[in-house]
Amino acid sequence: MSDPLFNTSLGDIRREINVGLAECSRRGLMHSAKWLAELKLGIVLPSGCESNVFSSTSSPKKRFIPQIAPIPDNEVDKYDVCKALFDLREYDRAAFYVENSKSPVARFMHFYCSYMAKEKRRLDNLTDHANLTETNSKRDLTDLLGTLRALYSQRKLDAYCLYLYGVVLKKLDLKDMAIPVLVESVNAAPTLWASWIELAPLIMSKEELMSLALPNHWMKSIFIAHTHIELFLNDEGLELFEELKNAGFQQSVYITSQIAIAYHNKRSKEYFQLFL
Amino acid sequence: MSDPLFNTSLGDIRREINVGLAECSRRGLMHSAKWLAELKLGIVLPSGCESNVFSSTSSPKKRFIPQIAPIPDNEVDKYDVCKALFDLREYDRAAFYVENSKSPVARFMHFYCSYMAKEKRRLDNLTDHANLTETNSKRDLTDLLGTLRALYSQRKLDAYCLYLYGVVLKKLDLKDMAIPVLVESVNAAPTLWASWIELAPLIMSKEELMSLALPNHWMKSIFIAHTHIELFLNDEGLELFEELKNAGFQQSVYITSQIAIAYHNKRSKEYFQLFL
Repeated sequence: MSDPLFNTSLGDIRREINVGLAECSRRGLMHSAKWLAELKLGIVLPSGCESNVFSSTSSPKKRFIPQIAPIPDNEVDKYDVCKALFDLREYDRAAFYVENSKSPVARFMHFYCSYMAKEKRRLDNLTDHANLTETNSKRDLTDLLGTLRALYSQRKLDAYCLYLYGVVLKKLDLKDMAIPVLVESVNAAPTLWASWIELAPLIMSKEELMSLALPNHWMKSIFIAHTHIELFLNDEGLELFEELKNAGFQQSVYITSQIAIAYHNKRSKEYFQLFL
Repeated sequence: MSDPLFNTSLGDIRREINVGLAECSRRGLMHSAKWLAELKLGIVLPSGCESNVFSSTSSPKKRFIPQIAPIPDNEVDKYDVCKALFDLREYDRAAFYVENSKSPVARFMHFYCSYMAKEKRRLDNLTDHANLTETNSKRDLTDLLGTLRALYSQRKLDAYCLYLYGVVLKKLDLKDMAIPVLVESVNAAPTLWASWIELAPLIMSKEELMSLALPNHWMKSIFIAHTHIELFLNDEGLELFEELKNAGFQQSVYITSQIAIAYHNKRSKEYFQLFL
């Protein structure tokens, strides 16, 4: 299962993480960016090979630019304002500036800022009684769902927009529709952790997990290990995470904490069995 | 006064803003980044010259990289984790990752994250009676002040660290010490709006404003106009902002709102005079 991991050199994994990190950062996907940055820091290269692996990535020019599509000149100014407003959590204003953008990043930002604006309003109104049934907030998302669905049927959504479409579908309890969308997203951009983490809780059994058309990528190994722990298949999950750890992610905070969760789950299960 | 503005082409101003924006973004100075991005969007190039000005900046490689010092390879991984945590407002953890960094950006991030962690704690504890006198929070800043002062006396602070030193001095009511530090900061990085905006309220008269050793830069014109409005010299401020607007910043939201503030100040003064 972890073959794809071993077929990719740690140097290449590092480079892929760097690209994924830049793509997530410029789209404001902060949790994915943090996860990728921590994973990268957790990579321990075998002693001696460090200088070789890094030598080809010594300048950020070589590492980043060839693989990241620049934002076109006619949209970059508006994108810059949008991103700055997004960072300050002024989502409505941010969405306004990139309203009619055509480039993938700016277009994603428009949808994502609209979604975040709605979510912020929903959380601000949580104490309001009229919102307790959550029908209002769902109605609020229907417009965005309509736009994304239309683009999806025309196959015009990239990996990041597919992620957002999946999130909106999940919010509206359309989980069966969300699974194929998120699977498509991780196939288009395997380093997008946000999509994997949205997909994991939708999987209900090991059979379902194994039947998914996932990309043949080292991220799949991490996802499969993660989902095993979510399914309380702790022993298998532990084994997979130990494999990942030994394959190069020795110092990953994420992997260490997943191993800790697995041990915790195991202990509590044994603990509960005492009372059965 | 606005000569330096007219001595710089709008294309160069745009390029300078791009560099300043990237420097602020990677340091988490979000308000400065927003201000610069909005100013850039407000630039209206004379019709016909647009394509010429932009042609030399068509790829982000040319525009950004030569002027931005990359973060060294041995620190970039820790910086990436730090920046991701900073974006998620986990300031203490963010500061930890870049604790012993030597590169300017990572070192600034360590100081800035430490400062933000302290500020966050102060705001969280505002309702606590023991903090009403604010002595605790000031004591909290003394460590940071000591470190920055020692580095300042060795002239080891760059423009961004000087800005932070100025902010800390202001917080501790050492305003006379803050002015030269902030002036030094804007001389070292004229596009750093954060330093200008911290400096403006410290100026008490037009004479003081004119005696400052400010850099001969187009940002100076904006600062001088801004400080005129702060000093309630509304007519002069209005004139300066109208000049800036005509010089190329036609659609700047910031300049329009400063003009609005000036008119508001004028009206209220006239309004109050009715009752004298």
